[in-house]
Amino acid sequence: MQIQVVRKILEHNEETAKRLRDTFSRHRTLVLNLMSSPGAGKTTLLESTLGTLQRSFNTAVIEGDISTTRDAERIAATGAQTLQINTDGACHLDSSMVLQALEHLDLSELDILFIENVGNLVCPAEFELGEDATITLLSVPEGDDKPEKYPGMFAKSHALILNKTDLLPFLTFDVERAKTAAMTVNKDLEFFAVSAAQGDGLQDWTRWIAEKVRGKQATG
Amino acid sequence: MQIQVVRKILEHNEETAKRLRDTFSRHRTLVLNLMSSPGAGKTTLLESTLGTLQRSFNTAVIEGDISTTRDAERIAATGAQTLQINTDGACHLDSSMVLQALEHLDLSELDILFIENVGNLVCPAEFELGEDATITLLSVPEGDDKPEKYPGMFAKSHALILNKTDLLPFLTFDVERAKTAAMTVNKDLEFFAVSAAQGDGLQDWTRWIAEKVRGKQATG
Repeated sequence: MQIQVVRKILEHNEETAKRLRDTFSRHRTLVLNLMSSPGAGKTTLLESTLGTLQRSFNTAVIEGDISTTRDAERIAATGAQTLQINTDGACHLDSSMVLQALEHLDLSELDILFIENVGNLVCPAEFELGEDATITLLSVPEGDDKPEKYPGMFAKSHALILNKTDLLPFLTFDVERAKTAAMTVNKDLEFFAVSAAQGDGLQDWTRWIAEKVRGKQATG
Repeated sequence: MQIQVVRKILEHNEETAKRLRDTFSRHRTLVLNLMSSPGAGKTTLLESTLGTLQRSFNTAVIEGDISTTRDAERIAATGAQTLQINTDGACHLDSSMVLQALEHLDLSELDILFIENVGNLVCPAEFELGEDATITLLSVPEGDDKPEKYPGMFAKSHALILNKTDLLPFLTFDVERAKTAAMTVNKDLEFFAVSAAQGDGLQDWTRWIAEKVRGKQATG
């Protein structure tokens, strides 16, 4: 009974996600859904990469949070168009929340739309938002065992960003172990190791996005 | 419609939690529910404190994980009786899972039962497990803004443990800001600052538990 209800919620989400996907395709806007545990550095990653991307592309960010507009304020300070969704307690964004947010965005002018999901290594993976790629951040202090312990999100992602590599000297974290475990559940995962706060390793990541934008704009 | 269903799930959980609470009271077993983001250090905190507590008390640990028995193996290595619950994808423990686990525990011999919840700063707060106290861990790398951004869990907790204080020199984290924000949503919160990995600050925490055990054993 509970399972049926959950299935209905997910089916409804899928339908709206499909509408979103069609809309994003029509406008050739690349959409990236960023997911991670709380505090893994999604907002800092965006702060550090928006500057580079904005030189070549029009970008906007949808900020998903349970409470506060803190992250949206940080992103708005970079000059990117920023929309806040407060989930009012819910542990993930869903596609109808994104659909509502789109009323405030002119997609025809946008090359890239980032969606920063609620900090949660479990629930957001179940709810597609019509994105082209799902990006999971794992931060060094969380530990190298997380891809094994929370496989769902790594299985659904297109890219894994290992963040806070500047803390590697102070912690026991085996990069190869984390990477191997993630690629065991998802062999196609792109892997980037960065320190968003220090600005290390971001070039490969921004280049990967730029290629995706050009790929999407060449379609249709 | 969705809201009604969620309410029913929560009501069902409450009923079983009440049964658990009665059972724990009858046996005068102190039950502590540990919650946090993934990688905040719940298992390491238990590893570091079980030794001290086991000198005076009989303890057991229920390990809640989405996948793997890794944490249960770490805890079993301390000599504490350990039970693993795998939630098979679910983002939190619920009281019926704990009720099932109790079939394998002799509560009449137990002074303290720790329940390590799934790593998630949102969902576990909604599901009482019949515990005497709910403990939230926040780790320094997660950032001092988390009590504001995820207020629900801090509001429901009896104690807040700030973990990984050994990383304070390498990060921007305002302890007073985090503490003040947490106490704004919950003025009765006990606060402990520790480094579970380095063994710093654990005395106050184990003393607080010992007092709670003695308080519970003096009742009834």
